[in-house]
Amino acid sequence: MISLAATAVVSKIKGEAPTMEQRISIVTLGVKDLAASKRFYVDALGWKAVFENKEIIFFQVGGLIFALFLREKLAEDFQVDAASFGRAAVALAYNVRTRSEVDPLMKRAASGGATILKFAREAPWGGYSGYFADPDGFAWEIAWNPSWSMKPDGSIEYR
Amino acid sequence: MISLAATAVVSKIKGEAPTMEQRISIVTLGVKDLAASKRFYVDALGWKAVFENKEIIFFQVGGLIFALFLREKLAEDFQVDAASFGRAAVALAYNVRTRSEVDPLMKRAASGGATILKFAREAPWGGYSGYFADPDGFAWEIAWNPSWSMKPDGSIEYR
Repeated sequence: MISLAATAVVSKIKGEAPTMEQRISIVTLGVKDLAASKRFYVDALGWKAVFENKEIIFFQVGGLIFALFLREKLAEDFQVDAASFGRAAVALAYNVRTRSEVDPLMKRAASGGATILKFAREAPWGGYSGYFADPDGFAWEIAWNPSWSMKPDGSIEYR
Repeated sequence: MISLAATAVVSKIKGEAPTMEQRISIVTLGVKDLAASKRFYVDALGWKAVFENKEIIFFQVGGLIFALFLREKLAEDFQVDAASFGRAAVALAYNVRTRSEVDPLMKRAASGGATILKFAREAPWGGYSGYFADPDGFAWEIAWNPSWSMKPDGSIEYR
């Protein structure tokens, strides 16, 4: 990241547009009912919010923020019509350290109100994974990928 | 994270479902045309892929992976009909260190083929931000939030 920062400085000196480093600061899902989202992420999954009000809830997830935001407010924020929202062609994945963690987590999500989209099975890429949908239908994959390395803090380092 | 890992171990001993730590391993966007996505993220934004084939491209973004996956393949992966996909009620945010970085990045994205959803302006939460849509319409916010702290590597630490 130091080299990226240095590149950004050089770009500025040259008068070019700054570099967009490879990172995501916030992942925001537009939700219909914040109380229902909270029941799922907080009560069922056990996540702890770092901030919440009547419109938005923030969770610290590794080095970024995961936000649940009322979808009408999100639509307003990026100036689209909320009526144009459909099923999101998006998936979030939670990778685990051992294969045996997958099924219990799928069960935990299901008992907390998630809909199972695909029961966990052997994946063509050599791992084991399943998908559930959160209360708004957002797809979450619970995956064990033996060929990816994970640091002690859970962050992924592609190799 | 050590305490979370310890909790997971304790849960297993008690026979409970394991804890789902607060992290996201992969953010996957379902895209229509991988070549167009690549022109935008690689050629225009300057991101470097860590893996790619004809269906998927992976980028290392901080401690997680950002994936662009052909939307039909993504739909197949979580077993929904790709025809049900609509505009995603989702936003990704890229937070910058200084206010002056916002406009040049919005311009850079626009000149690379992004559609401006909202030109950057003062935000009610005290910062300055705008939104663009990537080639598939996914909303990205470029935001300067003076009340959030950012580590040297760009990760966000909510305080």
